[in-house]
Amino acid sequence: MSKLIALITDFGLQDIYVGVIKGVIASINPHIPIRDITHQIPPQNLHSASFCLASAFPYFPQETIYVAVVDPGVGSQRRAIALSNNQGAYFIGPDNGIFTGILDLIPGIEARELSNYTYWRNHTPSVTFHGRDIFTPVAAHLGKGVPFDCVGPKISLESLIRLPLKPYQLTPDGVVGVVQYIDHFGNLITNIPAEVVKNKSWSVVISNTIITPSSTYSEQSKGELLALISSNDWVEIALNGGSAAQRLQLNQGDSIYVKFTE
Amino acid sequence: MSKLIALITDFGLQDIYVGVIKGVIASINPHIPIRDITHQIPPQNLHSASFCLASAFPYFPQETIYVAVVDPGVGSQRRAIALSNNQGAYFIGPDNGIFTGILDLIPGIEARELSNYTYWRNHTPSVTFHGRDIFTPVAAHLGKGVPFDCVGPKISLESLIRLPLKPYQLTPDGVVGVVQYIDHFGNLITNIPAEVVKNKSWSVVISNTIITPSSTYSEQSKGELLALISSNDWVEIALNGGSAAQRLQLNQGDSIYVKFTE
Amino acid sequence: MSKLIALITDFGLQDIYVGVIKGVIASINPHIPIRDITHQIPPQNLHSASFCLASAFPYFPQETIYVAVVDPGVGSQRRAIALSNNQGAYFIGPDNGIFTGILDLIPGIEARELSNYTYWRNHTPSVTFHGRDIFTPVAAHLGKGVPFDCVGPKISLESLIRLPLKPYQLTPDGVVGVVQYIDHFGNLITNIPAEVVKNKSWSVVISNTIITPSSTYSEQSKGELLALISSNDWVEIALNGGSAAQRLQLNQGDSIYVKFTE
Repeated sequence: MSKLIALITDFGLQDIYVGVIKGVIASINPHIPIRDITHQIPPQNLHSASFCLASAFPYFPQETIYVAVVDPGVGSQRRAIALSNNQGAYFIGPDNGIFTGILDLIPGIEARELSNYTYWRNHTPSVTFHGRDIFTPVAAHLGKGVPFDCVGPKISLESLIRLPLKPYQLTPDGVVGVVQYIDHFGNLITNIPAEVVKNKSWSVVISNTIITPSSTYSEQSKGELLALISSNDWVEIALNGGSAAQRLQLNQGDSIYVKFTE
Repeated sequence: MSKLIALITDFGLQDIYVGVIKGVIASINPHIPIRDITHQIPPQNLHSASFCLASAFPYFPQETIYVAVVDPGVGSQRRAIALSNNQGAYFIGPDNGIFTGILDLIPGIEARELSNYTYWRNHTPSVTFHGRDIFTPVAAHLGKGVPFDCVGPKISLESLIRLPLKPYQLTPDGVVGVVQYIDHFGNLITNIPAEVVKNKSWSVVISNTIITPSSTYSEQSKGELLALISSNDWVEIALNGGSAAQRLQLNQGDSIYVKFTE
Repeated sequence: MSKLIALITDFGLQDIYVGVIKGVIASINPHIPIRDITHQIPPQNLHSASFCLASAFPYFPQETIYVAVVDPGVGSQRRAIALSNNQGAYFIGPDNGIFTGILDLIPGIEARELSNYTYWRNHTPSVTFHGRDIFTPVAAHLGKGVPFDCVGPKISLESLIRLPLKPYQLTPDGVVGVVQYIDHFGNLITNIPAEVVKNKSWSVVISNTIITPSSTYSEQSKGELLALISSNDWVEIALNGGSAAQRLQLNQGDSIYVKFTE
């Protein structure tokens, strides 16, 4: 009954872009609440956007309409799409891999191409700002009760662009994964799920550094590296009172080795 | 029926200033929705504030109440004013040029000085924070239906402060304009309207660099400069995957030359 | 009647943490408005958080539910608490000193420990994100009308952690205080209340620099230091058009001397 629009973009908060899409939503659907997931996805970083959207999804109400805009190919031939989980949630944005995490997480997704310009801001969208001209107008209309099948024709899940994610791999004595996200504290969130290390003794090995698991950030002294299970259930590397990314000089996509010990 | 308050300031998001003005609005008018245009106008940059407000305006609902606060002269003799477009939109802030873009854009504006302290937060405002003590309280009251002519006496449009904007100029074989805004991607937005180059062959010439028009950001290779029509219909200079401002070492106010070619 | 949740954290706006806690609130209480005080408290800086919360409080509606999360000890034995002023305002967060300013400001506070997991997100909260799992869920439930005494047992005010604040001190010819907060403009807000210098001639003395009082920022020339009474009624040191903190190389906690002159 009470729908909500959740926004995730790389627009940043310095310019008017976020304000403008909120104005567009209010112009079409004045009463729908809007919540920001974040607007500070690193510019054009689709891996971060995909990870962040999938990570935030479980905490929002069922009937949330997500608009995700990291869109380096705006104005090119890339499609504008909407996904439905058939339980009230919609996901709207470009077909460029931004929904990879959502497609991996949720079964039974239905996809449509946004070709029905009835629900766009106008019939001739700009070539540089589909967030304003297509994605949020469609979201605002869906929030008003426009049926999902009106936004455009059904398209196959197989046709959707997905990011080439490198899965974690089990080795004889551990797991090799990658850094899939670095948060603003400099915490390194890997793609190794908590369940892989559960009930095992383990530590993270990076070059000559062995990082042992803690159950909380404050268990280690200030300035010490620690490994822990993140709030979203991934193996995470942190530094009490500082940035693990800076200390270890690691970037998104870099390998992480977890060694099982006895 | 459904009014909305839209905020644009240089308060930044680190301090409590934005939170405080939202608390003040909620104290007076708990039900009015608030939308942020941006709070990261470069400190005291009235040209950016004027440009951003005028650029965001077309995308908001008709009955929006804009509060614009970039206010280096707070506490001095500069007036506190409100503008009405007589179609439901109000603009509230200091009389220091921040509304230059709005005054150029909208005909039939009516201006009043905010001298009726009935609608201020209290009768003795601070000398440093009129956003909190005068502008948002008046906005919250207007949102509750206080008639516009109650905020204070009518003042002439001629008496309002305007920023000295340098207009673009046609030359025998092109247009000379200036950078009027640099967004957080480093895109350079000029004051040359799209219509001036429409149906013409053109390119941007900066020192020895000739930048040819593209229709989208992705049409050029990564790392290449390109010129295009911005989402707000200005000639814009961008760099695919980077900052044109940094590459070209250009600042707000710097000249831009567009050459017509055959 | 119309409750409101106000958030203050050090989560920053780059990650999804703020989005997630808003999703959690909407999942429990879809209709309650949420306002951000700030999410950019310097990481783990409890003094800034305490100051900012107490400074923002007077401007919000009476029935506001504050959630304050700067929580370096999350997952350790530190308690989760809620305070009530018995006039409709609640304050929810960790028992680590973050409410020092509020406890100093408001008489008649009642404190409870959040041990009733009925109002948590689930019965086994993470060890790293109580903002999501305990604090905002409790806030959302209080906003729905859950009585305060249901959140957990009463605890004594004496048992609450308080930050060791250094009070200002009167000397024979002035006042010695400290910088209690530095805002994003670089303005230095001291812990010396306006009333201490009221009706006196005074100036700030820092090493060999004498800074005389102004009534507004613009009273001094660009680039000049000035002292004034801040919008929250503290002695403040500013620099017209720049950062006083940078110019004077002063940090939070550094001493400030105000000399009474005749």
